[in-house]
Amino acid sequence: MEVKTVGSVTLPAEAGHEETVLALAKQWGADAIRDSDGTSLSRNLLDLGLETYSTLCIVRADQEYALSHWHQLARKFLMSEPVTATGPLVTIKLLAGFCADKYQVDADSDPKKYWEVIDRSTGGLLPGNQWQFNPADGTVTVHQARECHAYTVSFLALQTWDTTSMYNHITNNWQCAPIVSVDPYFPEAREHMMGFFDRWLEAHPETAVVRFTTFAYHFVIDSGEDRSDKFRDWLGYGETVSPAALDDFEKKMGYSLRAEDFVDEGYYNTTNRVPSERYRAWMQFIHEFVVAFGRQLTDKAHRAGKKTAAFQGDHWIGTEPFSEGYQGLGLDMNIGAAEDGVALRRLSDSPGPQLREARLYPYFFPDVFRPGGTPRRESVANWVKIRRALLRQPIDRIGYGGYLSLVAKFPDFVDHVAGLCQEFRSFQAHTNRTASYKSPIKVAVLNAWGQWRAWLQNPSMDQKFHVPSRPDVMEFVGSNPLECLAGLPVEVSFIDFDDIRQGGVPEGVNVILNTGDAGTSWSGGRHWADATVTTAIRRWVDQGGGFVGIGGPTACQHQGRYFQLSDVLGVDRETGNTLGVVGKPLTLAGPHFITEETPGALDLGTDRSYVYLRGRGAQVIRVAGAHVLMAVNAFGRGRGLYLAGLPYSLENARLLLRALHWASGTEDALTKWFSTNINTDCAAYPETGFLAVVNNVETEQATTVCDGQGRRHEFTLAPYEWRWAKI
Amino acid sequence: MEVKTVGSVTLPAEAGHEETVLALAKQWGADAIRDSDGTSLSRNLLDLGLETYSTLCIVRADQEYALSHWHQLARKFLMSEPVTATGPLVTIKLLAGFCADKYQVDADSDPKKYWEVIDRSTGGLLPGNQWQFNPADGTVTVHQARECHAYTVSFLALQTWDTTSMYNHITNNWQCAPIVSVDPYFPEAREHMMGFFDRWLEAHPETAVVRFTTFAYHFVIDSGEDRSDKFRDWLGYGETVSPAALDDFEKKMGYSLRAEDFVDEGYYNTTNRVPSERYRAWMQFIHEFVVAFGRQLTDKAHRAGKKTAAFQGDHWIGTEPFSEGYQGLGLDMNIGAAEDGVALRRLSDSPGPQLREARLYPYFFPDVFRPGGTPRRESVANWVKIRRALLRQPIDRIGYGGYLSLVAKFPDFVDHVAGLCQEFRSFQAHTNRTASYKSPIKVAVLNAWGQWRAWLQNPSMDQKFHVPSRPDVMEFVGSNPLECLAGLPVEVSFIDFDDIRQGGVPEGVNVILNTGDAGTSWSGGRHWADATVTTAIRRWVDQGGGFVGIGGPTACQHQGRYFQLSDVLGVDRETGNTLGVVGKPLTLAGPHFITEETPGALDLGTDRSYVYLRGRGAQVIRVAGAHVLMAVNAFGRGRGLYLAGLPYSLENARLLLRALHWASGTEDALTKWFSTNINTDCAAYPETGFLAVVNNVETEQATTVCDGQGRRHEFTLAPYEWRWAKI
Repeated sequence: MEVKTVGSVTLPAEAGHEETVLALAKQWGADAIRDSDGTSLSRNLLDLGLETYSTLCIVRADQEYALSHWHQLARKFLMSEPVTATGPLVTIKLLAGFCADKYQVDADSDPKKYWEVIDRSTGGLLPGNQWQFNPADGTVTVHQARECHAYTVSFLALQTWDTTSMYNHITNNWQCAPIVSVDPYFPEAREHMMGFFDRWLEAHPETAVVRFTTFAYHFVIDSGEDRSDKFRDWLGYGETVSPAALDDFEKKMGYSLRAEDFVDEGYYNTTNRVPSERYRAWMQFIHEFVVAFGRQLTDKAHRAGKKTAAFQGDHWIGTEPFSEGYQGLGLDMNIGAAEDGVALRRLSDSPGPQLREARLYPYFFPDVFRPGGTPRRESVANWVKIRRALLRQPIDRIGYGGYLSLVAKFPDFVDHVAGLCQEFRSFQAHTNRTASYKSPIKVAVLNAWGQWRAWLQNPSMDQKFHVPSRPDVMEFVGSNPLECLAGLPVEVSFIDFDDIRQGGVPEGVNVILNTGDAGTSWSGGRHWADATVTTAIRRWVDQGGGFVGIGGPTACQHQGRYFQLSDVLGVDRETGNTLGVVGKPLTLAGPHFITEETPGALDLGTDRSYVYLRGRGAQVIRVAGAHVLMAVNAFGRGRGLYLAGLPYSLENARLLLRALHWASGTEDALTKWFSTNINTDCAAYPETGFLAVVNNVETEQATTVCDGQGRRHEFTLAPYEWRWAKI
Repeated sequence: MEVKTVGSVTLPAEAGHEETVLALAKQWGADAIRDSDGTSLSRNLLDLGLETYSTLCIVRADQEYALSHWHQLARKFLMSEPVTATGPLVTIKLLAGFCADKYQVDADSDPKKYWEVIDRSTGGLLPGNQWQFNPADGTVTVHQARECHAYTVSFLALQTWDTTSMYNHITNNWQCAPIVSVDPYFPEAREHMMGFFDRWLEAHPETAVVRFTTFAYHFVIDSGEDRSDKFRDWLGYGETVSPAALDDFEKKMGYSLRAEDFVDEGYYNTTNRVPSERYRAWMQFIHEFVVAFGRQLTDKAHRAGKKTAAFQGDHWIGTEPFSEGYQGLGLDMNIGAAEDGVALRRLSDSPGPQLREARLYPYFFPDVFRPGGTPRRESVANWVKIRRALLRQPIDRIGYGGYLSLVAKFPDFVDHVAGLCQEFRSFQAHTNRTASYKSPIKVAVLNAWGQWRAWLQNPSMDQKFHVPSRPDVMEFVGSNPLECLAGLPVEVSFIDFDDIRQGGVPEGVNVILNTGDAGTSWSGGRHWADATVTTAIRRWVDQGGGFVGIGGPTACQHQGRYFQLSDVLGVDRETGNTLGVVGKPLTLAGPHFITEETPGALDLGTDRSYVYLRGRGAQVIRVAGAHVLMAVNAFGRGRGLYLAGLPYSLENARLLLRALHWASGTEDALTKWFSTNINTDCAAYPETGFLAVVNNVETEQATTVCDGQGRRHEFTLAPYEWRWAKI
């Protein structure tokens, strides 16, 4: 087996640091370089003989145009802070609490047509003659206000500073003028961008791959007066709004959307909210527009003889890689930021013929690459997770971003990345892009988004209340049950409630996984009050299916139950409605298949689940006081399992694997290919005849691997070692 | 000051144990004896010269009548366990899961008129022709059931074993036939009881006080197949139902109640549920009936020259001591079971001219008075709480219940009670029934019940999940914020949301306290979505009021807020709707008046409140990680305070006192009468000129008492000492 020492790695290059680039390209075996936001590629760099990726974010590429066409900037609906009336006249400063540099009230879009003033004490919409907008000071005055009622204004704001640009100013000390994005929904802007792109293509003859960041609309971060983040939605459609798009939507759909369809009582329809039909229609409308817009660009690039890549970040709204229309973009490559196994699977599992490149963390930015920074530690933590996921589903390339010049001062990091790149090339050589052996289990993750938002982190309440050590980083990524799942040898799909309504549980699925906080899109909220959904799943479990619920599964207060499938799960949650129901002393069941490898205490995320036994059948496997943390239940020929939580850990990942085998009644298949030490993983590649055994921890580990034929092999692995063996 | 050594104490006497009774009566200074359920008073006992109370529970007094008038037994609506349809025909065994000895399906009350079969997957009511009742086997058959939908039957059941009788059989090993109660709503039953009572009065010439237990309807305990409690509601109206009462209600009110008005999706309208208008109307209807019924009895007793007392237990539904019609009962004495300070205040604070006697715990029953039992410890724990409350509001007598014969084997308990009785008589001598000094604070506890259910324990979710050491005892009583409040020198009233709607916050109130789990009657649930309520309170706080919220205050998801008064409190709770809102790093405020005496860690009931800052003004006083546990906020001229919880402890009681002073802006008045050691309390009686200083713990305590004139006095108190001083 020959493993190349060069290839499959993309480096960020930087003019003025040619020697560093060359040295690192050599040491890491890079075969491509790219520019980054804020860096450029010099003649010398272009002459290194590496394939060149050039970054382009078309909506912010031409700042001169943007600054001279201010009214074409991206817009969004913002809700003013609620103001409590102390008299009949209320003055609401629209941008109070928002970053003054980032937003400007959009007075051009007829306020009386697009804006809404709402009495938040009653939910009542105020008639237009009860309020007026005062452009001079950016306020709205409400007349005849009801004393002590709270009022809000939902208004359109221009986004006068790109979120990413702002981040770079704050984190990377950029000094240039704030960068803004133009909304391509304006025909003039779109036309201008196309001309700009034509000229750009001509000006970049060396570019092999146009790396779009991404196309049209930025993800949502709202910034407060102190410039810190006040609201985040990595997938939010909040910044896709323009009066023209709203008007076109109405023409197409026959109904118009209100400001409140976006503002949503101030919740702004985050990805964690159960979406309304109307909001999903808007997403579809924007998605179609973005795909058409992106296709215009990729077509041009192809005609210029270049390949196209999209980096799934920044302006990636409407280009969800699992979405129906994604292939219409005509891309050659998907580039995904991958901080953990879930992100890797988002990249590796999405359909289509694209090459897949993972942009690894940490970014080479001064927040991590500072004196005292520990980039190697961060990278190792990520890589362990990514590797688990990689063993289940391959990708084609890896790469980095940021300022390569920062890296040279961290030789331990440089060495580590050299090893990491070689591990990746070795993986490619041994697997030849074939899939590894899977257990005979098809898991369908059920939530309100399904396929459209497959392999997304579903943040939880506990993660929100995690105290971060670095406020700029969402440290909680890679910490939830999906991260456990990302590295397991099972087939995974994502389904939503419409899938169930339309066709029942999809053919072939043997375990449904419903995981998330009660009431969120991840658990499903009001969808669980729909008898079509509950009866379809009940029937399916009754006939042999397995239902695994984590957190607040099937939760929706309705007809005497909170967990609507409490009959399947054998447990329900107290929400204050059943305080009269007497809590029975819990009797722990004896040893169980699911916890056979983790017989001790487990971190199931909480010690107050407020979950109690309901019905008679369930067996309790773990408790905290009188709180049920884990219970199993037989339902007809099928099985139900409740888990209070499942933070990512190697222990919990193994527990989930066993849980899936138990729920699907395939306990016997667990140890076909199996590494007995839970700190290790193995993966078998029948098509290439290789076996991978990896050590996920920083100490030497011994393990016994079952090889699919019933034979057992002993391995002793160095810290973090990734071993290949012939089978 | 002369303190009598005899008086104000009632003992349970027991035929056959005359010597014990006499000895204990002497040692404890009893001046009255009573019989108990299961005991009788012999001639010898009656001749002891003590005042005689005779217990009578009229609805179960004549078992012969009851057994020969089976159809007049008390009834209730039960909901069958939900049964999931596996085919078009579903058979539901009505009493599955219920104690077979305690219930009998009431086939006489036309099922098609009074019962309901409900599809709990949809909430849909099935037409009568889709189901049939099979009296032979106590089942209901549902036809054309929808596969995998869950069905329930709400049916009328006869109560064939009194809950208290069942308790006595299980706990006290009673061997007699199960005792049943007759429903006085049947005119024939009522007439019979009146005749019975006439004869009873004649047969009890020595009886000075008729001690009714209580009158008509028992509180709710549903029992499972294994005879254990499955559902409890100490105040529930579940057992007040009869077809005749339902029919009369309809005639009176012009609308009829459905079975679902009682069954309530299986929640049975417990006291913890926010009541519907319809349910409250039913309560009022029953209340009026019970008062009229009880008055018939007390009139007879008075005509026979006897006094009347009601023990607030067993059949006490409809006789809430704070209810509008209570005085209509014409009672001379209220007897209340008092296990803690809250129960004491329920007794001491209720209006009316009645004498008040506290029935203390533990009951002289074999569950406590068994080898290895620790009745003294239980009594001390209760007495410390009761004493705190007694210092604020006096009562007239104390007493015990059960089998006095059991007590003799516990000499430490006998001695302890002797001291306790003398402490009580000393209290009476020094206070002469006058009230102690109060701080200038009027607290209104706001919940969905108000005055009607004042000074009730509001159980919480955490209390439900408390692992009990004795499953028959609700160990959580006396553990909540109300228990803290019960011993504080402030005026307390209870108000409901209609009070606010009708007249705003009552005149004179300076602090509103809203405490309870979100969504329950104690917090208020949907009432908080009513702008009339929120605006009235906002206006009042704005003008200087104080609002203290504990647990899930003002909680109701509505128009972008969960805590509807989050503007007053400065905080809101995450429920999964605002996961996109970025949690700010919390900065703790410096030392604060409220925590000046408890500067260290506090047990605020939880370390996961999921509460975050909202708005700008609030100061954070205590946190756990990023969870706010305590925050204060200025709102206009008033103040808001949020506490995650406040389990009863001496520390938390002091904290609440300080919180009330802070919220009402009366910080200066705190130390007028004040004992500096938080393990102690003091109370001043200006009318008698005495000061009480008590030690609430089992070790010697030194304290400094401020005496109202600015002078300070040092005291050193023995364990649990109650000291009196002249002022």
